[in-house]
Amino acid sequence: MASEEQAVRDTHEAWMVAVNAGDLARLMTMMADDVVLLNPGGPPLGKAGFPDKFSPAHERFLLRCSSEPLEITVMGELAYTVCRDTLHLEPRAGGDAIDLAGHRLTVYRRQPDGRWLLARDAHTLTSV
Amino acid sequence: MASEEQAVRDTHEAWMVAVNAGDLARLMTMMADDVVLLNPGGPPLGKAGFPDKFSPAHERFLLRCSSEPLEITVMGELAYTVCRDTLHLEPRAGGDAIDLAGHRLTVYRRQPDGRWLLARDAHTLTSV
Repeated sequence: MASEEQAVRDTHEAWMVAVNAGDLARLMTMMADDVVLLNPGGPPLGKAGFPDKFSPAHERFLLRCSSEPLEITVMGELAYTVCRDTLHLEPRAGGDAIDLAGHRLTVYRRQPDGRWLLARDAHTLTSV
Repeated sequence: MASEEQAVRDTHEAWMVAVNAGDLARLMTMMADDVVLLNPGGPPLGKAGFPDKFSPAHERFLLRCSSEPLEITVMGELAYTVCRDTLHLEPRAGGDAIDLAGHRLTVYRRQPDGRWLLARDAHTLTSV
């Protein structure tokens, strides 16, 4: 099970690298087809709607996201993590940066090939 | 597995009844000892800190919470739910009511005796 925890940790880190790199194609391969992403103040986001939220954000902002896992729990084919997150947004057009902070609860599902896909996620990030 | 899904649904409904009734003692029996509750704009809440948040809210407000399960998934000893939530707060001292809306991702763990305990929860409720 320790190796599965490490696999989830690696998946989480790869996700954050891809987020900060603006690597949409990579992120799309890391989420389940039925992914649900919950966020304060907006409707739930699925896989089909993800690019239209992610790409404009990267076009508008220099984006730096950090996410520290506080817990990684694996039970069979499911895993969940609790992370402490920050998000720093610098407008590419200039102006004041925006800083958000909060936490994140994520559910991963293991695939038959051993990969862990991000399946459900809810973050509580708000302006600081 | 259908009966386990029903058990999680029953647990969810019992939780909401207890929330609206201000039944702190019941809620405390329904959460894991290491429960983590995430919310926008505040620190994570554990079991020890729950009464000091819950009881003052009930003292100050007439509280009506609704939570509609959009998904209940059970895999072995773990289950997760995605719900659409609303919270209506009427100040007992009078004044304008506060309405919040959002979603909720919850992780439950099955106990050896078959009960499902609320283990991790993140909601995205914000003012509407």
